[in-house]
Amino acid sequence: MIDLSDIEAACERLRGHAVLTPLLELPALNEMAGGRVLLKAEPLQRTGSFKFRGAYNRISKMSSEERACGVVAFSAGNHAQGVAAAAKAFGMSATIVMPTDAPVIKLRNTRRLGARVVTYDRLRDDREAIADAVRAESGAILIPPYDDEDVMAGQGTAGIEIAEQCAALGVVPDLLICPAGGGGLLAGIATAMASLSPATALYAAEPEGFDDLRRSLLAGERVVNAKGGSSICDAILTLTPGALTFPILKAHLAGGLTVSDAQVITAVNALFDEAKLVVEPGAAVGLAALLSGELPLKGRSAVVVLSGGNMDRSVFAKLIASAEV
Amino acid sequence: MIDLSDIEAACERLRGHAVLTPLLELPALNEMAGGRVLLKAEPLQRTGSFKFRGAYNRISKMSSEERACGVVAFSAGNHAQGVAAAAKAFGMSATIVMPTDAPVIKLRNTRRLGARVVTYDRLRDDREAIADAVRAESGAILIPPYDDEDVMAGQGTAGIEIAEQCAALGVVPDLLICPAGGGGLLAGIATAMASLSPATALYAAEPEGFDDLRRSLLAGERVVNAKGGSSICDAILTLTPGALTFPILKAHLAGGLTVSDAQVITAVNALFDEAKLVVEPGAAVGLAALLSGELPLKGRSAVVVLSGGNMDRSVFAKLIASAEV
Repeated sequence: MIDLSDIEAACERLRGHAVLTPLLELPALNEMAGGRVLLKAEPLQRTGSFKFRGAYNRISKMSSEERACGVVAFSAGNHAQGVAAAAKAFGMSATIVMPTDAPVIKLRNTRRLGARVVTYDRLRDDREAIADAVRAESGAILIPPYDDEDVMAGQGTAGIEIAEQCAALGVVPDLLICPAGGGGLLAGIATAMASLSPATALYAAEPEGFDDLRRSLLAGERVVNAKGGSSICDAILTLTPGALTFPILKAHLAGGLTVSDAQVITAVNALFDEAKLVVEPGAAVGLAALLSGELPLKGRSAVVVLSGGNMDRSVFAKLIASAEV
Repeated sequence: MIDLSDIEAACERLRGHAVLTPLLELPALNEMAGGRVLLKAEPLQRTGSFKFRGAYNRISKMSSEERACGVVAFSAGNHAQGVAAAAKAFGMSATIVMPTDAPVIKLRNTRRLGARVVTYDRLRDDREAIADAVRAESGAILIPPYDDEDVMAGQGTAGIEIAEQCAALGVVPDLLICPAGGGGLLAGIATAMASLSPATALYAAEPEGFDDLRRSLLAGERVVNAKGGSSICDAILTLTPGALTFPILKAHLAGGLTVSDAQVITAVNALFDEAKLVVEPGAAVGLAALLSGELPLKGRSAVVVLSGGNMDRSVFAKLIASAEV
C-alpha cells in the first residue's frame, strides 16, 4: 500500500521534470455535460501521457549501481515512452520490448528517446521471455507498468495536482472519472484524493468487454475478462486489475463505468471540437462515461482525467472523419 | 492609443468569463526548436480563439440602452463566435454577417451561440451594405474585429497573462511571436508586454503574400498586399494593418516574419504530435516562424502565441494526413 506521503515525495522528485498539466474548463463542454467539467490534460504531459510520472519516480529511487544496469520494460506504447524518457533523463540505457504492430508514433518516439526497441510478434513470441533474456544479459531492472508502489506513487502526483488545482478554483468536485487499464494511475490518484478531497466520489471508466475492474469491484475480488473482445482503446486493454492496484481501488472507488467504442468516438470528437485537444481513445473513456449521462451532473462538478494523446495521425484523421458533425 | 491600465481593467471585466489559458511547455518542442518554447494556448479559450476577449470587453462597456439595441459584426468565423458568445453572456441579440463558404464549424457554432447569421456571397454581395441595413433596422452597434480600443484592450489580457505566467516560471522571454491579421491581438499583447516585460523582443508572424504588417513596419507606414495571393491561413488574411493597431505595432515591434503554407503545415503537425493541440493554420504561423530558424533560439526562450483552433474536422484530417511522419 502507498499513502499520501509517498505521493508527496514523488511530487518533489518530479518537480521541474514532469509537466504540471493544466486542469482545463471549457464552457462549451460544461453545456454539453450539463454541469461543471474539469479536464486533467495528461496528453500535455512529457511523452504525451501520464506514464512519465511513474517511470521517473521509480528510476529516481534507484541507487547509482542499479542505474548502471539500465532498465527494461514491455509496453505497447505509452509506458514505453515514459520509461525511455525517464531513463534518458538519468543518462541510463533502456530496452523496451514492443509489439511489431504498435502505433508507429509510439515506436518512433520510443527510439527517438534513445531506447533500444526490441520488437516481437504478438502471436508467435513470448515477450516475457524476451525481457528475461535482456535482464539475464545486462542485469537491467524491470519497470512494471502498474504493479509497483513507486510507479503508483508517481502516477498519483496527478492526483495531488488535481486536488490543489480544484482548491485554487474553490471547487470540491462531486465526481472524478479516470480511465483504468491495470489501474496504476487511478490507484495513485485515488490515494491522493482520498486524503485531500474525501467528499469526491471516484469512478473508473473502461471499454465494453474490458470492464474487469468494474466487475471486480462488484465481486469484491479480481475477475478476468472473457477472451476475444475488441476495442479501439488500445492503451487500456488489460485482462484483470493489478494485484497491487486492486486493493487500493477496492478501498477507495465508488464504482466503474463502461463505454462503447461509439461513445468513445463521440468523446474524442467532442474534445477535438470543443477543447481543441488530441486525446487517444483509451484516454477519452472518462469523458465518454460522463457524457453517457449514467451519473447525473446537473448542478454538480466532475474532474475527468484525460490520460494521454499518442496516436498515429492517420488513425486520428479517421476518428474525426468517422463522426457526424 | 491604449495603455496598460486599459488592459488591466479589461482583465477585471473578463475574470470568471474568459478562460485563463495555460502557458504550456513541452520538452519535445523545446528540443525541436533548440531552446525554450512557451505556448500561449488560445485554442483553449472560450469559443476556441482569443476573439472572445475583445468582444466581451467591448460589450461590457456598453450602457444598458446600447445593449438593448444588440450588436452586429462581420467575420469569417473566429470574431463571429467571440461576438456571439459575448452577446449571449449579456443576454443581447447579435447578428453576424458571414460568407456562405465560411468553415462549417464556425457557422454552426455561431448559430449555436444564439446569434442570427446572415450569409453573403463573397463575389456577389457587399457585406458592409448588409451590416449597414442591420444597423439601420435595429440600431445594433458594430463590433469591429480589431480597429477598436476596447477590442484591443480585451485581446491584450492575453499579454498580461503571459507576463504573469512567465514571472511565475521565473522566465524573462527573449522573444514573443504572435500571428497578425488586422493586428488587434498583437497590439494588445505588445502594449502589455512593453510595460511588463520590456526586454522581450516582439515579432509578428504572417503568411507569404499577406505580409502587409512586416512590410509596413519596414516602410514605416501602412502598405497593402498585392491581390491574388492565396494561403491556408484563412483566419489572418487581411489587406493591410489596422489604422488603430499599426501605430501601436510600429512603436513596439522588433519586426515581422513570413512563413509558407508548407511551414505552417509542419507546425500544425508538430503541435499535433508533440503538444496534442488542435491549432488552425492561421494560429500556427508563430510556431512555423520559430521553427524556420530565422531567429536563433539556442540558449534562449520564446513565447509563441497560438491564437485559435477552429477548423472543420475534414480540413484538419487532411492537414495531418498531408505531412510526412
